[in-house]
Amino acid sequence: MDLFQLLLTMAILFILARIGAALVSRFGLPGLIGEIVMGIIIANLAFGDFSLMEFLDLSISNPNVPESHSSTTYEIIEAFAELGVIFLLFTVGLETKVKDLLGAGKPALLAAVLGVILPFVAGFALIIAVDGDMHHAMFMAAAMVATSVGITARIIKDMKLMDTREARIIIGAAVIDDVLGMIVLAIVKGMAESGVSIVNILSISIQAVLFVGIVILACKFVVPKVYDYFDDRRQKSIAAGKVPYSVNKLVFSIIVCLLMAAFAEFIGLAAIIGSFLAGMLFADHAWEWDLEHKIESITTFFISFFFLNVGLQVDISTLTDMHVLILAIVVILIALATKYIGCGVGAKMGDRQLDKAGFNIVGVGMMPRGEVGIIVASIGLGTGMMSSDLYAVVVLMSVATTIIAPPILSKLFRKKYHEEYKITADDLI
Amino acid sequence: MDLFQLLLTMAILFILARIGAALVSRFGLPGLIGEIVMGIIIANLAFGDFSLMEFLDLSISNPNVPESHSSTTYEIIEAFAELGVIFLLFTVGLETKVKDLLGAGKPALLAAVLGVILPFVAGFALIIAVDGDMHHAMFMAAAMVATSVGITARIIKDMKLMDTREARIIIGAAVIDDVLGMIVLAIVKGMAESGVSIVNILSISIQAVLFVGIVILACKFVVPKVYDYFDDRRQKSIAAGKVPYSVNKLVFSIIVCLLMAAFAEFIGLAAIIGSFLAGMLFADHAWEWDLEHKIESITTFFISFFFLNVGLQVDISTLTDMHVLILAIVVILIALATKYIGCGVGAKMGDRQLDKAGFNIVGVGMMPRGEVGIIVASIGLGTGMMSSDLYAVVVLMSVATTIIAPPILSKLFRKKYHEEYKITADDLI
Repeated sequence: MDLFQLLLTMAILFILARIGAALVSRFGLPGLIGEIVMGIIIANLAFGDFSLMEFLDLSISNPNVPESHSSTTYEIIEAFAELGVIFLLFTVGLETKVKDLLGAGKPALLAAVLGVILPFVAGFALIIAVDGDMHHAMFMAAAMVATSVGITARIIKDMKLMDTREARIIIGAAVIDDVLGMIVLAIVKGMAESGVSIVNILSISIQAVLFVGIVILACKFVVPKVYDYFDDRRQKSIAAGKVPYSVNKLVFSIIVCLLMAAFAEFIGLAAIIGSFLAGMLFADHAWEWDLEHKIESITTFFISFFFLNVGLQVDISTLTDMHVLILAIVVILIALATKYIGCGVGAKMGDRQLDKAGFNIVGVGMMPRGEVGIIVASIGLGTGMMSSDLYAVVVLMSVATTIIAPPILSKLFRKKYHEEYKITADDLI
Repeated sequence: MDLFQLLLTMAILFILARIGAALVSRFGLPGLIGEIVMGIIIANLAFGDFSLMEFLDLSISNPNVPESHSSTTYEIIEAFAELGVIFLLFTVGLETKVKDLLGAGKPALLAAVLGVILPFVAGFALIIAVDGDMHHAMFMAAAMVATSVGITARIIKDMKLMDTREARIIIGAAVIDDVLGMIVLAIVKGMAESGVSIVNILSISIQAVLFVGIVILACKFVVPKVYDYFDDRRQKSIAAGKVPYSVNKLVFSIIVCLLMAAFAEFIGLAAIIGSFLAGMLFADHAWEWDLEHKIESITTFFISFFFLNVGLQVDISTLTDMHVLILAIVVILIALATKYIGCGVGAKMGDRQLDKAGFNIVGVGMMPRGEVGIIVASIGLGTGMMSSDLYAVVVLMSVATTIIAPPILSKLFRKKYHEEYKITADDLI
């Protein structure tokens, strides 16, 4: 590991991310869009012999070239990016009390289910019609399914709108959607690798549902009892004149977050699902332990690398093929429309009192695919189940939905909650 | 990068580090000792076919085997360790106001200079007498010079003794000592590589002195003016009814910290000198911007990996060679004695009012070599200027001085400041 190179790369990436965020915030867009676009610019910036990626020692392994591998600097930046989104979801979890989540129940559930079925069916049908390959169609459909709750969550957090009806539906739906998306991926992957097996489908589905269910039950019944037990012991030991044992709450919560993220990865779900659920375990005591502020500093350190990295993975040169370009545009339109209709209708079915603005907010808020689509596509590419053209299309779709949705979403939010919430420059830059 | 492996390794290392810290704190020792010892245990723990290092995917490149290289997981953990000590020194810098540092002036300067000359001369003479190789002797002497301010700083911070006379002498001396140590290393390295050159020696010395001097002058004269200018603009824009532009102070300070650490590496000094000086730049506004708390969360996340990593690099099997073992013991005794006498006498010469307890605290506080000696030794090994036996001796010396000094130091501190400062369980675990 070259420490000088790492420090230089980190500093330059940080500076460029902040410049990107500051520039787009002039137009009222959330900073993450500037960070993603800055990532795209960094990946493609070169003057003659000078390439910024080379200067920053960021060589990314090419899935098409088996013997290529990433530079150590890039692998470390990638680890920061992963930890950033894990801690971001942990913070979102800290703000999600089980009580509130179950309250959002039916609309979130219906939005998630319809928001998974529609894109899957449409994506599958499109690729069968255009390309005819069954595996290609399955992976494309799976890549179109999963919403990237990270991006929407950041907007909601930036605008301080966590306690609105729409935010609760979106966050709830995104969690269910993520779980469903991972189940879809696991099924598609399993089918591609070992043929369709009802046992595989059932086993991964049961694991995912059990994981979420157990955490929710733990939040409701176990955590309060554990907390009361230790609080009681603490009070008794103070009353007895002894110095009470105490653990560093920040370290304890980080350990739980890492363990649950690792466990989620282990059983085939995404790490962010684990960290989100870990956050929920601490939600009732986050304020008392000042966890949100402490974790937020850590998230601030890591998260810009995540959004930059989403941009870094876009190679603009793939766009020179007209056929790929047109397919990408069609896929993007379908991806936007199916999520909008699926989630909007689902939410409205579950909550009849949701007004038109709420329908729009939920529909648009569920649009961004972010990194999840890209992860699905890269798994497809790695197992030879996806062509490199379709991989480029998925990356473009993920980035486009991620860029298109946030400005519309923040406009819709601002329109509906105009008077109550005012974004300050400090929140955006 | 294998995300599951990384998360699992991080979680297990975190848990083991906290267990180590909690166990030693039962004996009144600072947690970092437990973390280092835990690192040694992790590196050497194996049952039959099971090796903990393998389970954690921590393979460390062996400098003796040219084609060996570290696992990606280890390289990421190593990056965390480096960032941990960089942010730790940044926090120490945040608490070091230039005004106070210059106040510690003469005793710190004399302690540093004598504390460099004595170990260098003694180390050089010993290896010339035992081994006879000029290059070996030079590198061993250089490895014995540098104090690891990180370890002493953590004890001082843990015990909340930053504002004592001794702490100021130690921190001041350690900074000067680090700069001197790096100059010694640069000279030794330059001599080994391209022969003695008065131009090289002068140029690296001037660079180091200039860097520190410019930062101190900037703290005194430039930073207050820049701050007043922006504060003034802010006030005017508020008075004019506009929303004032503001930057995220945490991100801004992290960028400055990373840039200065990179710059220090670039000119041949250690990264921690850069981050320490960066901290000093913000010292006057750290409280106002709540920087200490925010950076502390980030440091908490990273720092355990640093102390674990110090332990991880110890291979107990080298101790089976009786010759190496005896040499190691002699080197450790000389390393302890020369720092104790050099720094104690230097501090006393500079500050006649320093009492016996103060002499002891400064002498013991400057003993730990920590990572700095190991870095010097690995550079020597990498350039073929050091034998692998002597490398093992330096590692043992660094670890031993780092383990021996802290408990004595905390006892000395507690004896002198018994009534005023009481360590609570929360500070230690």
